[in-house]
Amino acid sequence: MTINIPATVGMSVEDIDTPCLLVELDAFERNVAKLAKFIKDNGLRHRAHAKTHKSSDIAIYQIEKGGACGVCCQKVSEAEALVSAGIRDVLVSNEVVSPKKIERLAALATRARVIVCVDDLDNVDDLSAGAQKYGATIECLVEIDVGAGRCGVTPGEPAVKIAKKIHAAPGLRFSGLQAYQGKAQHAYDYAERKALIKAAIEETANTIQLLKAEGLDCDIVAGAGTGTFEMEGTSGVYNELQCGSYIFMDADYQRVKDGNGKFISEFENSLFIYTSVMSKTKADKAICDAGLKAQSVDSGMPVIYGRTDVEYIKCSDEHGVINDPHNVLRLNEKLKLVPSHCDPTVNVYDWYVAVRNGRVEALWPVTARGMTL
Amino acid sequence: MTINIPATVGMSVEDIDTPCLLVELDAFERNVAKLAKFIKDNGLRHRAHAKTHKSSDIAIYQIEKGGACGVCCQKVSEAEALVSAGIRDVLVSNEVVSPKKIERLAALATRARVIVCVDDLDNVDDLSAGAQKYGATIECLVEIDVGAGRCGVTPGEPAVKIAKKIHAAPGLRFSGLQAYQGKAQHAYDYAERKALIKAAIEETANTIQLLKAEGLDCDIVAGAGTGTFEMEGTSGVYNELQCGSYIFMDADYQRVKDGNGKFISEFENSLFIYTSVMSKTKADKAICDAGLKAQSVDSGMPVIYGRTDVEYIKCSDEHGVINDPHNVLRLNEKLKLVPSHCDPTVNVYDWYVAVRNGRVEALWPVTARGMTL
Repeated sequence: MTINIPATVGMSVEDIDTPCLLVELDAFERNVAKLAKFIKDNGLRHRAHAKTHKSSDIAIYQIEKGGACGVCCQKVSEAEALVSAGIRDVLVSNEVVSPKKIERLAALATRARVIVCVDDLDNVDDLSAGAQKYGATIECLVEIDVGAGRCGVTPGEPAVKIAKKIHAAPGLRFSGLQAYQGKAQHAYDYAERKALIKAAIEETANTIQLLKAEGLDCDIVAGAGTGTFEMEGTSGVYNELQCGSYIFMDADYQRVKDGNGKFISEFENSLFIYTSVMSKTKADKAICDAGLKAQSVDSGMPVIYGRTDVEYIKCSDEHGVINDPHNVLRLNEKLKLVPSHCDPTVNVYDWYVAVRNGRVEALWPVTARGMTL
Repeated sequence: MTINIPATVGMSVEDIDTPCLLVELDAFERNVAKLAKFIKDNGLRHRAHAKTHKSSDIAIYQIEKGGACGVCCQKVSEAEALVSAGIRDVLVSNEVVSPKKIERLAALATRARVIVCVDDLDNVDDLSAGAQKYGATIECLVEIDVGAGRCGVTPGEPAVKIAKKIHAAPGLRFSGLQAYQGKAQHAYDYAERKALIKAAIEETANTIQLLKAEGLDCDIVAGAGTGTFEMEGTSGVYNELQCGSYIFMDADYQRVKDGNGKFISEFENSLFIYTSVMSKTKADKAICDAGLKAQSVDSGMPVIYGRTDVEYIKCSDEHGVINDPHNVLRLNEKLKLVPSHCDPTVNVYDWYVAVRNGRVEALWPVTARGMTL
């Protein structure tokens, strides 16, 4: 709806309506370039994770300027939105098991390269039937659980069994392994993260060997997120990374330090919740207009960017409470919040306001906002 | 986007795509009727809070069938969406202080009765200028902080000062007090809740007397939510209630018990996140398709409705992890989750799937979904 658009192109940042999502383009572009260099230097592919941004503008930028070979997403409806925007190489890095979603996935595979994850033998039959119905080929990665305890079969023989069934199934193609260690990404301690990924790499390498013994090659060995990509990327085992948050960063990812105690790869904050003080009746507090409906607080409160004198301490549906011990904030004053968790925060917005040098350069729709199906 | 619609009218509940929001119409209608009876029995007005549902279908139902005199909402953009849907009596139960939002509010006041909250003297000048520019009248409630520690001025003289300025300002009308005790709503303990509201009632009554001494009558004395409305509603002080969550209830509100240890007014769960098991590779766990992007977890994890044998224990962006100690869940099995907090959960969805007797009766758009401005 037009009535909820927070800015117009060319406008000064000060004039943007709040709360809204800001992307600082210079920082965003430096983040994209930094990962592109790592990928190139290490002879890898990067399948950029669109679950973070849900934006066709950003996905196309990552492919055209950031060296990405294609995108990942987590939902069939996200894949549909991205294919409709012209992207022709999409991995749904998740299982697709319901009859309706399998139909949609198969239909989509007639319009683009479509890859999906599989962790169930019966699901192979269903995907095969869907693909045949649409005359499509669906590429499949067997997802192995390398420690996250979520989706995925046990590495080794259980994975091989599914791979063989995929290989034999009409309409499907066995393309490799999905081996994402989700639990490791936000392990703040470097040594702990390293140990978790070491185990994941070993289990993945072992499964690749077992598959090879059955004559099954893995074109794709996929995984890795922003917290650990340097580990998988230099393993000699993984060949396709799936980083998402690196473009934006968030308060939680900034608690994840590298081996030198620095932010991972020195990625910069480029995503902010822009908010205004909308009530100032107390000397030591200010109320801002970004509450629970302007973010996800699953990973804690947002951090006020560039300020140590004020602190965002709690929130309710439409309000954030800011400690203002020196009584410096004024009504209508604007602040930039670093979201605690970027992915689910982006998901509540319709627009990114992309800014550079204090001006609005572009408005990007959150193309797949709310695409849960 | 049409590709994200989870159901069609007439469909069996079993065939609805997931994750999505279900409204069980029988329970929803009983909740609306229960509050309507209380309002009528106590000679009150009810201004239904649309911040909970953001739906013009539900707002119109509350007015036409549930005895509501109009609606509240928290954002100007929500008010615009509701007025566009035909609602002609809207309170923005929040401060509106930015120049752009004041313009929009004033323009809206030419199309409907528009009421807003005020807690700042300078804001009175800005609202007055806006109203005069559009030849509109904006009604104003002085918001007093009766214990929530959020917006609102101190009760008593500071409130009177603002009221007098509103009364004298061209284009504005002083209509009364906003005295909502937000902190009390989710106080689980009945005695604690009772004490908080007793204090709020006293401060409100005192402010009304001071206003009366200045010749200022309060047409509206507003406040109360689902957790406490019986207290304000029988106080003889408040005359306009603002309940929102009572139509749906949620897991957190069900921890708020009445004086007899029962759910408040015995409102029923009518809102659910419908979810499917999408991975089942472990004997003691199942993974469902409703994670952080399908809800807000600020008040904890959702509760699986009608089941004691399985438990939703944690989630990541697109996955929920369910403990399944007896290994009873199967792939594609559907479950109904009671959201932990209904308002911000609704805000991530585009549609309500309204069901009765196992069939889809209607699809309601979440009209003001994502309206943060």
